[in-house]
Amino acid sequence: MSDTSDYPHTPKFTNRRPDEDLLERSVCERCGFVDYQNPKVVVGSIVLQGSKILMCRRAIDPRKGYWTLPAGYLELYETTEEGARREAQEEANAKIEIDRVLAIYSLAHISQIQVLFRARLIDPKVEPGPESEEVALFEWDDIPWSEIAFPSVVWTLAAHRRTEALDVFAPATNPPEGEISFPIDGPPGL
Amino acid sequence: MSDTSDYPHTPKFTNRRPDEDLLERSVCERCGFVDYQNPKVVVGSIVLQGSKILMCRRAIDPRKGYWTLPAGYLELYETTEEGARREAQEEANAKIEIDRVLAIYSLAHISQIQVLFRARLIDPKVEPGPESEEVALFEWDDIPWSEIAFPSVVWTLAAHRRTEALDVFAPATNPPEGEISFPIDGPPGL
Repeated sequence: MSDTSDYPHTPKFTNRRPDEDLLERSVCERCGFVDYQNPKVVVGSIVLQGSKILMCRRAIDPRKGYWTLPAGYLELYETTEEGARREAQEEANAKIEIDRVLAIYSLAHISQIQVLFRARLIDPKVEPGPESEEVALFEWDDIPWSEIAFPSVVWTLAAHRRTEALDVFAPATNPPEGEISFPIDGPPGL
Repeated sequence: MSDTSDYPHTPKFTNRRPDEDLLERSVCERCGFVDYQNPKVVVGSIVLQGSKILMCRRAIDPRKGYWTLPAGYLELYETTEEGARREAQEEANAKIEIDRVLAIYSLAHISQIQVLFRARLIDPKVEPGPESEEVALFEWDDIPWSEIAFPSVVWTLAAHRRTEALDVFAPATNPPEGEISFPIDGPPGL
């Protein structure tokens, strides 16, 4: 643990537009440090065992108790593929092999970019990690559609369903507003 | 400008692993705020006018004087497509229409994700913005290959060349280490 109480100065942040910038930033008026805030990247996967899809029931808020895909924030110095493998490991103790890019979504209202992959389970053993109450492999018709955690989980499942037989396809991007409703009671229209 | 000198406390950051986290973070010991640091997203485009490609000669460091594609950091509350359009506008006064996703790269050593699009120029007028010394539209054989700013610019140009005749293709990802050398003297092998 490195205590920073001996920093050369106490920061004094104000919100202003730095020289040669177009937007307001948080700037330390004592040293000029600009605390840029940018969107964060979430990485995750549709993890397949045959036609079954790995899902995790969330043990944490938001949406505790609802089902999601293994996914989470990309960390510093990771590739998107490394991050997706780590999240599958952390949330479902799942060892996976990344197959290809499935989707890229922009959740602009929460400043989040999501990069989703199609992947394969390379060891049949899965079990809940600390952030999951339960993990399970579902056939399409058995997915708990009314208990999905987030809209983009539905988008990703639909994108997988549209492309599962294809080797070459363009990644899915945000569906047109209103095209896929949420929450839902059964499988989304494709 | 909002002065923050009247914040309820002066932050006192230490680096430690928060409860229920796996990595060290910078945590304020006075209020518990965790200053998560995550990779940043760069968005940009291959902007086409017919078969010509829009490039910008950098007016700023790093790599001042070298040629790049219109691209830059995604801002809060932007979609990747909005960010790519804004960067084309800022760097080359270019109005563009996004066509499709061309590439997704992970520059893990600098904690950067790049999302590149294929796009079309929808107004023939282009001119340098404040961060560009010069902008130009190049046929493939006229690209100043020995004066390219960054390796991922070469990767993106090569990805475009491989896919320019295609409507449906998988996005390019990082080329295998060493497959595309940098700097180069002429067009990259595809």
